[in-house]
Amino acid sequence: MSENKNFHPVWINEAPKEKSYRSIFKFGNPDDFHHPGPKMYQALKEIFNLTDDHFKEMVSTGNQVVEMDIPTGIGIEHIESFERISGEENVTSETYDRIKYSTGQTAEEALKLRSHQFDQITDLVVHPRNKEEVAEIVSYCNENLIPVYVYGGGSSVTLGLTPAKGGITLVLSTHLNKIIALNELNQTVTVQAGLLGPMLEEALNDAPILYGTKHAYTCGHFPQSFMHSSVGGWFVTLGSGQQSTYYGDAVDLVVSIEVITPKGTIKTDAVPATASGPKMLDIFAGSEGIFGIVVELTWKIFRHHPENRRYMGFVFPNWGSAVEACREISQGEFGLPSVLRISDAEESDLAFAYSGFAGSLIDSLITFLGYRPGERCLCIVTSDGDKSYTRNVHRQLKKIGKRYGAFYLGGSPAKIWEKGRFSVSEREDLMDYGLLIDTLETGVSWDNLHQVHQKVREYVKSRPNTLCSSHASHFYPQGTNLYFIYSFLGTNLQEYLDFQQGILQTIVESGGTPSHHHGIGRLAAPWMETYLGKNAMEVLKTLKEHFDPNHIMNPGGILGIS
Amino acid sequence: MSENKNFHPVWINEAPKEKSYRSIFKFGNPDDFHHPGPKMYQALKEIFNLTDDHFKEMVSTGNQVVEMDIPTGIGIEHIESFERISGEENVTSETYDRIKYSTGQTAEEALKLRSHQFDQITDLVVHPRNKEEVAEIVSYCNENLIPVYVYGGGSSVTLGLTPAKGGITLVLSTHLNKIIALNELNQTVTVQAGLLGPMLEEALNDAPILYGTKHAYTCGHFPQSFMHSSVGGWFVTLGSGQQSTYYGDAVDLVVSIEVITPKGTIKTDAVPATASGPKMLDIFAGSEGIFGIVVELTWKIFRHHPENRRYMGFVFPNWGSAVEACREISQGEFGLPSVLRISDAEESDLAFAYSGFAGSLIDSLITFLGYRPGERCLCIVTSDGDKSYTRNVHRQLKKIGKRYGAFYLGGSPAKIWEKGRFSVSEREDLMDYGLLIDTLETGVSWDNLHQVHQKVREYVKSRPNTLCSSHASHFYPQGTNLYFIYSFLGTNLQEYLDFQQGILQTIVESGGTPSHHHGIGRLAAPWMETYLGKNAMEVLKTLKEHFDPNHIMNPGGILGIS
Repeated sequence: MSENKNFHPVWINEAPKEKSYRSIFKFGNPDDFHHPGPKMYQALKEIFNLTDDHFKEMVSTGNQVVEMDIPTGIGIEHIESFERISGEENVTSETYDRIKYSTGQTAEEALKLRSHQFDQITDLVVHPRNKEEVAEIVSYCNENLIPVYVYGGGSSVTLGLTPAKGGITLVLSTHLNKIIALNELNQTVTVQAGLLGPMLEEALNDAPILYGTKHAYTCGHFPQSFMHSSVGGWFVTLGSGQQSTYYGDAVDLVVSIEVITPKGTIKTDAVPATASGPKMLDIFAGSEGIFGIVVELTWKIFRHHPENRRYMGFVFPNWGSAVEACREISQGEFGLPSVLRISDAEESDLAFAYSGFAGSLIDSLITFLGYRPGERCLCIVTSDGDKSYTRNVHRQLKKIGKRYGAFYLGGSPAKIWEKGRFSVSEREDLMDYGLLIDTLETGVSWDNLHQVHQKVREYVKSRPNTLCSSHASHFYPQGTNLYFIYSFLGTNLQEYLDFQQGILQTIVESGGTPSHHHGIGRLAAPWMETYLGKNAMEVLKTLKEHFDPNHIMNPGGILGIS
Repeated sequence: MSENKNFHPVWINEAPKEKSYRSIFKFGNPDDFHHPGPKMYQALKEIFNLTDDHFKEMVSTGNQVVEMDIPTGIGIEHIESFERISGEENVTSETYDRIKYSTGQTAEEALKLRSHQFDQITDLVVHPRNKEEVAEIVSYCNENLIPVYVYGGGSSVTLGLTPAKGGITLVLSTHLNKIIALNELNQTVTVQAGLLGPMLEEALNDAPILYGTKHAYTCGHFPQSFMHSSVGGWFVTLGSGQQSTYYGDAVDLVVSIEVITPKGTIKTDAVPATASGPKMLDIFAGSEGIFGIVVELTWKIFRHHPENRRYMGFVFPNWGSAVEACREISQGEFGLPSVLRISDAEESDLAFAYSGFAGSLIDSLITFLGYRPGERCLCIVTSDGDKSYTRNVHRQLKKIGKRYGAFYLGGSPAKIWEKGRFSVSEREDLMDYGLLIDTLETGVSWDNLHQVHQKVREYVKSRPNTLCSSHASHFYPQGTNLYFIYSFLGTNLQEYLDFQQGILQTIVESGGTPSHHHGIGRLAAPWMETYLGKNAMEVLKTLKEHFDPNHIMNPGGILGIS
């Protein structure tokens, strides 16, 4: 033991080597880092029962250049065909690219890449330049029975990018990343599916200059992956942004789509409502690429009024009161906040520890007032909309906070949270020292929220020295989600996978859905039939046969469909 | 000519004879009447260029008892099977019942019944007592290739109830009309599909007494057919209530369903959000019975606060300013009103004439102020929700009204409208004197609203002495609906049908959807492929084959599917 108050672990603070394994799994921009601070470091040692010694040597960091050369399984005549369609410069069979565009953001994939393993990789990477090329490629692959996978921003955390059957991967974010039209009258923007969050939001914020609009706009959808996820991905995985309580989930924000399938193209009408039979748009919402490729979307936009935004923070005495207050907020019909987020006791304690709040004067005060560590729960809120609306939401929330025994913290916690909300790069630092961290999440109704929360915590905590922090962050009058973050010491892949599956099994057994907004991918696919029932799975299979009789679209297990 | 100021037409003020044709097509309760007042009568004469003489003799009123006896086309062995399943008392092959449960609320059906004609009628009427019986019947009919039609409240205005292939009609509102459970925590109510609006709403309003809840509730869905339409019907036709701007359309209000198809039963999870593939619920939303029978639904409920409701009325100088104000209201993000309804100039003039407002002192005043007949447009508003919310909506709307040049009328117009909102019985009075009146409606975006409105008006007005009044009454940030009421002198069926088809053709050609909330039925079915495209129609056909390979569920043209 060598506990030295001045010891701080070395955190990697350099961009991964070019074309290294690390450059593939590192989340966010290569040059962005968000290391654990001293308080977090102290907390980590306590949680995992470690000493400084543990943090003196890194495990494999994956910062080695990918040097192997894996022959592509695709014939040269096909490669030439794709080069003819999309241009030579947009087609590559280089191993590094093939690994990169076959990889998402699960801990499993990162763990493998650190030891230079990987799952099935694609045989060819193609960057189509427009939707006509996508249609031509899909048609070609259908004729020649070549599997087609799609890569948008690469932020999948469900093994949604694994090309389980080889074939080709289309990268949509390289060229299909343009805004096609902004319609201020209809308050919509039509975009190509590969457009990433920041480019969309910046253009909308600057719309008066760029498009000569009367108002500035916002897209309303801010998932944690915002910087590195695409509009098409948001829709096909049924994503949800951090401000969804006000703006709605991705599926609520899409007015129409154009989708290319082996059976042809479908373009839906961009009208807010029509009673003309079951909606095609709904069939592709959540389809995760197994029926076809969404190439364009018309997205609802909202007036951008950052000056109207209000920030609030509360500490509730316990999880039960935090949940009840949020139910009252969600059902009270005075207007909805934009971010609404409650952390359970374990997550709240961590937040207080990491931020340096723990041990502060206010901490002493509120502890004295009965908001005790191990019980108290942090709540952060922002509100959006017209000034009169956010003012009212603010007022009503203060009342509700009081009614449910909360201590009002002012706007700072929400502001601090907002600043770091798209960053999760501590994950790499932890893994550099052999600490795994990952997340799973689920949709719940109010009446099974506590059961799911308790059962999952019990399961995770059955493993010694394991962190399990949870929050609810997407609210509806009928319920919310639960987001579980778990972490433990260990780099054994099978052990990790077994544990992960145990958590998913516990979620579904206790009444949660297999996912609230990450989607199913291959990760949760084994629970699809249990969750939906056999008859519903048969419907998905029928739709698959309809759109893709040769099973070339994202084949190999996505959504439990071969 | 015998214009006598004291002449008033005789309006039928007695319930239709029992088992008469009229008892089938008369809308609403048999004893409820809502006759044209003297002012409306004067206006009608002017519009249709008629004299009192025209109103001295009625055309065929259909008030004759159905005396014919049409042999059923279904074998006695099948009848006995259905009697075994649902009890003898719940099965009938009596001609009157068979006509009644084969008939909806189109002008076409009323016109036919007045002259003792009707479309195809069902061979047998069955009133199943529970969902298990529905499953048994569907399974039996699938084995024996007997078509199955479904009758909920009977308010279809799309020929949705016509048993085009004979077979049996299941009436769901007779027994499958119970509330199964009210879940206050989740703010949902689970009901049988045949439950009609009033029974649902009364139970929710009285929930504190009936269910011991903390709050009283409302269902939020109030279509004009509210008194005579069923929860299942609201969902499968994609209906929309008069307060949809705040509460959402029917499809937004359903959390989960249980549906029985020839391929088996599907029960969806009652969770507010899940990212687990394309949603089964969405596939049955708008399916109008062609895949299976929705037997149970879990519906969102809302706190019932009639004391918080605010009423407002405006007169806008013209249609353009009324539309722009409503766009600002829908996009302003200060909260949404519940009823929001603007009438175009023709409808506004009629409303002012019928109500006696025309010629009043206020009329003179506002005309003097520039709100001229033939241009000015009436707007009525109510708001629901928390007191602080409705207060804010009220305030903001007053400001917007002012900004767009409206004259504020106070709460009376909305209150008067609300009282009569479920009544349309003038229709029978007009038809008694040979005046046809019917409606068609469409969904529009802001950017094609004016084109659709103008083109449809042009088309309708190309026929002399034809009334064409329109309103927009379901608002979204991206657009609204247009509801056209047209009326003319004539009882020639073919002439009427040609005209109706011309209007539908004009709607779709000018960019509107085939329906906003009436659904497609058989009426708008010919426009389905034009509207959706061939590839989308193929998807519907595939789903039909999947759920109902023997084409026994509502066969014969609904949604354009055989």
